[in-house]
Amino acid sequence: MKLVVVGAEGRMGRMLIRAVAEAKGCTLHGAIERPGSAALGKDAGLLAGIGELGVPVTDDPLSLFVAADGVLDFTAPAATLAFADLAAQARIVHVIGTTGFSEDDLKRLTAASYHARIVRSGNMSLGVNLLAGLVRQVAATLGEEFDIEVLEMHHRMKVDAPSGTALLLGEAAAEGRQVALAETRVSTRDGHTGARRPGDIGFATLRGGSVVGDHSVIFAGPSERITLSHHAEDRAIFARGALKAAQWAFDKPPGLYGMDDVLGLAR
Amino acid sequence: MKLVVVGAEGRMGRMLIRAVAEAKGCTLHGAIERPGSAALGKDAGLLAGIGELGVPVTDDPLSLFVAADGVLDFTAPAATLAFADLAAQARIVHVIGTTGFSEDDLKRLTAASYHARIVRSGNMSLGVNLLAGLVRQVAATLGEEFDIEVLEMHHRMKVDAPSGTALLLGEAAAEGRQVALAETRVSTRDGHTGARRPGDIGFATLRGGSVVGDHSVIFAGPSERITLSHHAEDRAIFARGALKAAQWAFDKPPGLYGMDDVLGLAR
Amino acid sequence: MKLVVVGAEGRMGRMLIRAVAEAKGCTLHGAIERPGSAALGKDAGLLAGIGELGVPVTDDPLSLFVAADGVLDFTAPAATLAFADLAAQARIVHVIGTTGFSEDDLKRLTAASYHARIVRSGNMSLGVNLLAGLVRQVAATLGEEFDIEVLEMHHRMKVDAPSGTALLLGEAAAEGRQVALAETRVSTRDGHTGARRPGDIGFATLRGGSVVGDHSVIFAGPSERITLSHHAEDRAIFARGALKAAQWAFDKPPGLYGMDDVLGLAR
Amino acid sequence: MKLVVVGAEGRMGRMLIRAVAEAKGCTLHGAIERPGSAALGKDAGLLAGIGELGVPVTDDPLSLFVAADGVLDFTAPAATLAFADLAAQARIVHVIGTTGFSEDDLKRLTAASYHARIVRSGNMSLGVNLLAGLVRQVAATLGEEFDIEVLEMHHRMKVDAPSGTALLLGEAAAEGRQVALAETRVSTRDGHTGARRPGDIGFATLRGGSVVGDHSVIFAGPSERITLSHHAEDRAIFARGALKAAQWAFDKPPGLYGMDDVLGLAR
Repeated sequence: MKLVVVGAEGRMGRMLIRAVAEAKGCTLHGAIERPGSAALGKDAGLLAGIGELGVPVTDDPLSLFVAADGVLDFTAPAATLAFADLAAQARIVHVIGTTGFSEDDLKRLTAASYHARIVRSGNMSLGVNLLAGLVRQVAATLGEEFDIEVLEMHHRMKVDAPSGTALLLGEAAAEGRQVALAETRVSTRDGHTGARRPGDIGFATLRGGSVVGDHSVIFAGPSERITLSHHAEDRAIFARGALKAAQWAFDKPPGLYGMDDVLGLAR
Repeated sequence: MKLVVVGAEGRMGRMLIRAVAEAKGCTLHGAIERPGSAALGKDAGLLAGIGELGVPVTDDPLSLFVAADGVLDFTAPAATLAFADLAAQARIVHVIGTTGFSEDDLKRLTAASYHARIVRSGNMSLGVNLLAGLVRQVAATLGEEFDIEVLEMHHRMKVDAPSGTALLLGEAAAEGRQVALAETRVSTRDGHTGARRPGDIGFATLRGGSVVGDHSVIFAGPSERITLSHHAEDRAIFARGALKAAQWAFDKPPGLYGMDDVLGLAR
Repeated sequence: MKLVVVGAEGRMGRMLIRAVAEAKGCTLHGAIERPGSAALGKDAGLLAGIGELGVPVTDDPLSLFVAADGVLDFTAPAATLAFADLAAQARIVHVIGTTGFSEDDLKRLTAASYHARIVRSGNMSLGVNLLAGLVRQVAATLGEEFDIEVLEMHHRMKVDAPSGTALLLGEAAAEGRQVALAETRVSTRDGHTGARRPGDIGFATLRGGSVVGDHSVIFAGPSERITLSHHAEDRAIFARGALKAAQWAFDKPPGLYGMDDVLGLAR
Repeated sequence: MKLVVVGAEGRMGRMLIRAVAEAKGCTLHGAIERPGSAALGKDAGLLAGIGELGVPVTDDPLSLFVAADGVLDFTAPAATLAFADLAAQARIVHVIGTTGFSEDDLKRLTAASYHARIVRSGNMSLGVNLLAGLVRQVAATLGEEFDIEVLEMHHRMKVDAPSGTALLLGEAAAEGRQVALAETRVSTRDGHTGARRPGDIGFATLRGGSVVGDHSVIFAGPSERITLSHHAEDRAIFARGALKAAQWAFDKPPGLYGMDDVLGLAR
């Protein structure tokens, strides 16, 4: 499977280049950075710290996409929307690990998925997607006497909060309870907040150091607490998951898929 | 429902007395301690710190059981086996929170359950039983590349290890994996242990302070970890669960039940 | 020592009544509620669930304070300021566990302490005050390559965030680093936050269930993390600490003291 | 500073090679494996995944030690004792991260330190050594009503338990309490253990996945718990610490040092 990595110079981009280079049956077809990037022209393998691959970084996605089977994309919403249009034109697989989309953005991705095979997830790891399923189930079983809180910690460079994964877990909780997250989400608490409103789903965010990603969903009831947690040691789990998603989507019809589909987890 | 509390003077006994006194539709029919106990003759309510109930502690279970609907029992294996025989004679409900039974003990309980309605669980709380279901499910989903470890902490007075609840969670993991816990259980690690044997289910035990009961099941895989935890704040959750079990079993046929049955949790 | 409990009907008030009743060398001299409270006229002991003490709840603090040795106060800022004036007039000990004071409020407390012996702390437990000392020390040792985050969880009824204890721990961190908490404190993160600013001290707040009080201070550095945590099982530790503070302050000169002083912890 | 890495093929060996190659003012003077190792003759840089360094792996330590400034050693007790004799002959720095020494082994290391500058630690990270200091201090402050427990988790390949770091933390606790760890240490709990003996220091061990190293020391008292934890994300912190130790010891007189000395932490 011939794969293109976009955002090649970033931390996840380099991780993806390594993962593609190491995976059986996959080749790195191209590596993209934005125009003006200092990485343009450099060898993608050297950039990723794994020896020369003979693939120079370019700023021309379309000419690469037309001859590729898929694109791996952990960039930012605006860039991802542009890549989605190109991937739809090229009718290839588009694996999206980008987070922070608006409702409008998501509509554009849905439109693109009439032609592309998009796999989008706020988190590509097996563990987090399994956890989301458990959260949905526990939220459906326990009543409102159990309060739901989502806690996450990431490294100091992360620019958005809560993390896409925390929101994914919150969505799973809201689905389990059959409520809308938008109406129950509480993301800030500071000063005189008043008592917790029954049914709210709370989010708390920690930032610091080089933490790859820790998430916990807490169900706090009368005199007991259930906590479901995921701890990522290494960003490689996301790159491996993205690759798995690309391979899974290779022979699927156009559409918008999630990691549930890729991992065969029941919903 | 007329209920007898055995082991009335102990910490759980007094908790049970309070729970029965506070519950709607329940009355404390009797309170039992062993012959020679200093509590004999005292009022059960005063013993439990909740004002006089008019129920003196006695050492004669049989005469109480025959006119009762059920007995709540968090004592020790030998005492519980004796109570089980009497409860079977009286054909009443026997809720057993006692832990530490041998295989032979369990056979005797099964025999008693031809006449009594026994609800037995290593942990009567909603949260722990829900957790056990999740553990079974995750263990069935993840392969042996995820190692399973069970961690528990209890107060300094606890005399057995691992806790009955930890074993209950370990059993759930073993069931999920379709292996026998007896063959995969590792409860001690000290000195040169060698590498972890694939498929083992490990147990680690902490003791200290006044901890009511913390349990975690860890699924540790390549570069990621899922942890499912339960934290009990207050022994009252066990007493409330025992009461719920007694009420549930009231109109059931004789048999040996678990908290899964009481709580209506799918297996 | 003759002690008055204010806010007698609240959860901490009843806890304090029990603690005073059980403590050697202390007697409950009075119990105060606000005018109009349904608790007025009731016996404080019955209110606290421990049998009659012969002390009716009243709404007249001054007449009680003049013949008392101290007052135990976990109410709200406005009430506490009024009690502080009365305690100063009566020249007695005023133990303040109330949180949420403004800078102006604190000035008024300082003024009151010229006549009263005030012991004020956001948390009266031995453990939390010990932890604050460790936090100060670690913050002083580690450079800015270790990011400091304060996490807390409390029950669903708590109305302010972050907790007084979380702020106390944040203050300790700021002192260790010789920075002002007001300039480095970050209490909310939601949406596009940008990267973490070096030197910031972050706060995250969880609310749910019946959690008595959990606090963690995280020092997250390059590839390693130190976490210092306190877990309170039972509000009784705060009541016992308040009592200890009152007994300690009995023979001290007027002034504004902290639990560091009471517990003899080095700063 | 010219450094030799022994155990070059192992996980820590390769980590050390990378750390030396990246450090300013250090060069890799040699790389040692045991006779018969498949790594002999290979380039140490290629072995470590960082491009050729021109340093072949050999099985002849002495000829390397005589012209080197120091040796970095995370091997096993028997090998380390042999290296210590050679390092003493060569009068160079010997940084020892090996764990699992017997009392007799430690005597031999002390003897070697009359000629070599040995820095030995069960854990070379800044965080763990800082934590040990806190543990010593808290253990000295709190009485026996606070029970001390040490919990650790490491990857599935680790062959000894408890970890050297857990023992280092237990030693710190024992020192703080002025007791001997050998007399208070409890490393296994299984079956009927009886109640916890006052003053014991307990150890619990978890093994699984790819966990680099998590350690917690729990002080569990009446209704409250203090937990001091360290989480290592990456083995690189140990390699960086070892390098820091070698550089620190370069101009010191012969002797047996610890990381406390290197990091300038007060005891």
